[in-house]
Amino acid sequence: MGKQRDILKILAGTFQIRHGLLRQAMAECLGTFILVMFGCGAVAQVVLSRGSHGTFLTVNFAFGFAATLGILVSGQISGGHLNPVVTFSLCLLGREPWRKFPLFFFFQTLGAFLGAAVVFGMYFDALWDFSQGELIVVGRNATAGIFATYPSQHLSLVNGFFDQIIGTAALIVCILAIVDPRNNPVPGGLEPFTVGFVVLVIGLSMGFNSGYAVNPARDLGPRMFTALAGWGREVFTANNYWFFVPICAPFLGAAVGVLIYQLMIGYHLEGEVQEKQKEEEERSKRSNMTTNEEA
Amino acid sequence: MGKQRDILKILAGTFQIRHGLLRQAMAECLGTFILVMFGCGAVAQVVLSRGSHGTFLTVNFAFGFAATLGILVSGQISGGHLNPVVTFSLCLLGREPWRKFPLFFFFQTLGAFLGAAVVFGMYFDALWDFSQGELIVVGRNATAGIFATYPSQHLSLVNGFFDQIIGTAALIVCILAIVDPRNNPVPGGLEPFTVGFVVLVIGLSMGFNSGYAVNPARDLGPRMFTALAGWGREVFTANNYWFFVPICAPFLGAAVGVLIYQLMIGYHLEGEVQEKQKEEEERSKRSNMTTNEEA
Amino acid sequence: MGKQRDILKILAGTFQIRHGLLRQAMAECLGTFILVMFGCGAVAQVVLSRGSHGTFLTVNFAFGFAATLGILVSGQISGGHLNPVVTFSLCLLGREPWRKFPLFFFFQTLGAFLGAAVVFGMYFDALWDFSQGELIVVGRNATAGIFATYPSQHLSLVNGFFDQIIGTAALIVCILAIVDPRNNPVPGGLEPFTVGFVVLVIGLSMGFNSGYAVNPARDLGPRMFTALAGWGREVFTANNYWFFVPICAPFLGAAVGVLIYQLMIGYHLEGEVQEKQKEEEERSKRSNMTTNEEA
Amino acid sequence: MGKQRDILKILAGTFQIRHGLLRQAMAECLGTFILVMFGCGAVAQVVLSRGSHGTFLTVNFAFGFAATLGILVSGQISGGHLNPVVTFSLCLLGREPWRKFPLFFFFQTLGAFLGAAVVFGMYFDALWDFSQGELIVVGRNATAGIFATYPSQHLSLVNGFFDQIIGTAALIVCILAIVDPRNNPVPGGLEPFTVGFVVLVIGLSMGFNSGYAVNPARDLGPRMFTALAGWGREVFTANNYWFFVPICAPFLGAAVGVLIYQLMIGYHLEGEVQEKQKEEEERSKRSNMTTNEEA
Repeated sequence: MGKQRDILKILAGTFQIRHGLLRQAMAECLGTFILVMFGCGAVAQVVLSRGSHGTFLTVNFAFGFAATLGILVSGQISGGHLNPVVTFSLCLLGREPWRKFPLFFFFQTLGAFLGAAVVFGMYFDALWDFSQGELIVVGRNATAGIFATYPSQHLSLVNGFFDQIIGTAALIVCILAIVDPRNNPVPGGLEPFTVGFVVLVIGLSMGFNSGYAVNPARDLGPRMFTALAGWGREVFTANNYWFFVPICAPFLGAAVGVLIYQLMIGYHLEGEVQEKQKEEEERSKRSNMTTNEEA
Repeated sequence: MGKQRDILKILAGTFQIRHGLLRQAMAECLGTFILVMFGCGAVAQVVLSRGSHGTFLTVNFAFGFAATLGILVSGQISGGHLNPVVTFSLCLLGREPWRKFPLFFFFQTLGAFLGAAVVFGMYFDALWDFSQGELIVVGRNATAGIFATYPSQHLSLVNGFFDQIIGTAALIVCILAIVDPRNNPVPGGLEPFTVGFVVLVIGLSMGFNSGYAVNPARDLGPRMFTALAGWGREVFTANNYWFFVPICAPFLGAAVGVLIYQLMIGYHLEGEVQEKQKEEEERSKRSNMTTNEEA
Repeated sequence: MGKQRDILKILAGTFQIRHGLLRQAMAECLGTFILVMFGCGAVAQVVLSRGSHGTFLTVNFAFGFAATLGILVSGQISGGHLNPVVTFSLCLLGREPWRKFPLFFFFQTLGAFLGAAVVFGMYFDALWDFSQGELIVVGRNATAGIFATYPSQHLSLVNGFFDQIIGTAALIVCILAIVDPRNNPVPGGLEPFTVGFVVLVIGLSMGFNSGYAVNPARDLGPRMFTALAGWGREVFTANNYWFFVPICAPFLGAAVGVLIYQLMIGYHLEGEVQEKQKEEEERSKRSNMTTNEEA
Repeated sequence: MGKQRDILKILAGTFQIRHGLLRQAMAECLGTFILVMFGCGAVAQVVLSRGSHGTFLTVNFAFGFAATLGILVSGQISGGHLNPVVTFSLCLLGREPWRKFPLFFFFQTLGAFLGAAVVFGMYFDALWDFSQGELIVVGRNATAGIFATYPSQHLSLVNGFFDQIIGTAALIVCILAIVDPRNNPVPGGLEPFTVGFVVLVIGLSMGFNSGYAVNPARDLGPRMFTALAGWGREVFTANNYWFFVPICAPFLGAAVGVLIYQLMIGYHLEGEVQEKQKEEEERSKRSNMTTNEEA
């Protein structure tokens, strides 16, 4: 036992990374990995079992709770964004420095890429059995939709763009309310569960158009994986270059969400806090003056 | 970074609203907006996908968790009623001033109206694809039921009225138990989740007759939107002016719920508290008398 | 406002019940009412909509969360048993006095009776529409199963008896673990939610044989209501007097559950506490002796 | 009442077990019993009702919440592992002594065996009715899959092995994050619920290949029960001795999971703590030196 302890201590010393930002990036990578592994895994289970082992609801549950677990695993270290638009929103509000944004974006996309790879490996036999040896992007036995999102038949590009803006704005309004230090509605430690509920609800009500990516990393990472793994570059060109929508629209949606939350709730709480600070400063000034006069 | 902070501070100062009641009304508006956007969005998803992307259960989940999120977002500011009959009940019990009631009612209805508008925009293509260009209130491809509630075939107006009274009374009994400061059964901060469970359970067991509106704002706002957006005034006249039931019956149900809770639980707890206060007052009187005598 | 306050105070004074046990009985009545109204309401929704507005899973959710809500409403006053076998188990363990048992049993059954009545009223039109004017106990359009439990085709009386024993024993083991003051595994205030999960899980895994009554009051109250409301005495005679099983077997199951929990977990924790107490007593004796000697 | 108390005290004294490790083993036995009774019970309900009383989703819920309840019941005494690979991982990390491993493995398997026996007894009639008197391992009316896991048609042994490794690694990464005293992301007392969510999510996304055993005890115990109860030794030989996979692969998966968690998160947190300790030691040394010099 004593010997094992020593070995473990040496291991901890050897592999410890001291660079704070790199650690955070790695945590984001692991968190997004978990999100995509469980989330896309659930889509794979539904598609490949032709509905016998799941429904759209189970996909919603899986993405919601996978978000919860991803945040739980990474939250203490990096904040558990798992989504570039969350990082983007916090940068917009001045709560995270901008230099985190490209780094997190890269590592989140990497985590999503790896998550897709694990799903591919895990359901390798099932994938081959289902698609009868062909990896197809569009059509009856299409399997690309397991990894990245594609629009429904009825959806135009404009409506799809609007759909992603709405979805992301809703996500950001709810997340900002949950993590706002001045609003503070959730008991400490329950934020990951609450964000999971947000993702679940978005899936329940905004999933029909194109599968609620609302996360450029979650969509781009697995899409790049499928491009490399055999589905080919059609994953980018399909549906009039649809892949562009879940990358760009969410950032616009995040800006809209930040604006709505700040105008309806945030600014009033912030303003209040600022006023209190000013009052206190003035009071302390005055009391200083009085003391000085007294002196 | 410093510059961004300054801009953000100026923005907060500029847009801050200092009028407390208006802030609360805006929070109610945003909360009800979230409730209806997610709730009716889930109905739209089920209807427009013809059941492939959801079932009645997913609608129940969506309305329940949407209530949770709406309360989380607005709760710290306005209490998170999201429902005129909740405001009404709290006014009845003397816990909120009556002047809040019409203001909250208006802003809740406005939020619901806007929520319906977002659902309409988000599923615009799907709506047109589903209904083949016609927005119908009653019949096979009817879509008005996505936004407001309509009775099932089997339901008479009298039974419908009773149904809404029961549903609202059940809602109010549970909410009063959850927020009663003397009963206090839920750990602080979990009230929004618990109310979400209440809404979920009402949907699971009281949703078959007419879709459990139990909320005049949630029903009236989207119904007015559909009247303007192309469904026409049939949304009001359909089913023998059904629209009247989910507006009036809930208030009656709220009164019944308040009565049941107070008679079975509330009065006994209140009476106890009053008795203790009296005893303490008398004790302090007596001890004063003793001190006086001693003096 | 001031006037309203006065009226409310007078009301509280007038209707306040000072008899502690009666208050507790009323709270049990309301709690069981809520359990049955939501639980049987969900069964009604599934049966009467012929599966379009629910599945067996929604019934499981409804009973689970209805138990949670019933306990939340009544818990602070009566402990929120909602089930005679819970009261029975706590009496067996000496944590509640035996005189509470018949009183709680009666009021729990009364609450269940009233809950069934509300479900009957709420779905009156739907019930008539479904059964085409006939209230039947057994057969294709049977509706008695909405209120009380009846065995599946495959179930013999002996297996049914065993089924109810298992179900209740599982319920009691879990509840005892949750409320054991020496085990104390759940953060304070989350007990009602945890018990709701127990009821949910029992429904998910033990519901196929006869619908997991595991609660004599929940079964007997609604059964008596159906006997009076038009289904006739067949509700008692059907399936070889099945009604006896969900009344008797649960008590036996409770005894089994108490035994299992105590032998596997409880006695060891209790014994530990007793030993500590003894040690402390001896130590204080010894220190007393020392002080005496010193004196 | 007084007399009952005395009897209860004597009982507690008589049956109390003082051997700490045996108590823990018994708690693990009861916890795994609960996990398997509810989990396999849910599978039985789905299979035997031919889908009318459940779906794959209800099985996922049942295993998830059953894990929660099993941990709640046993957690305060033994830690609530319920799974030999969890014990194995904690031994690997030096948080549990290795001698616990074989003992816990045995008692967990025993608990799973007994849980399967209870499910067998509870659904005895239904089992006979479903299988028409034959207990079959493979084929249309096969019932062995209620108790132990068997691979889907499409699955090769290699992919199955990989599937179990992935599943267990995911489980272990999440559990380590949840219980890491240095990460500590979940409010105290919510760990059992969070682990339940992990099990649920694994079922939602990794259940199609072979039913996500990810637990040698949960698979081996019920498999041995079926071998004895009438299904015969085919339960071991079927699918090219598949039974070996859910016993061996999870341990490999656990090692992978421990490695991933430690490399991505754990070592960095541990290293930080060690560095702080060193700094403090040095500081106290220096301050000692200063005091000495001063002296």
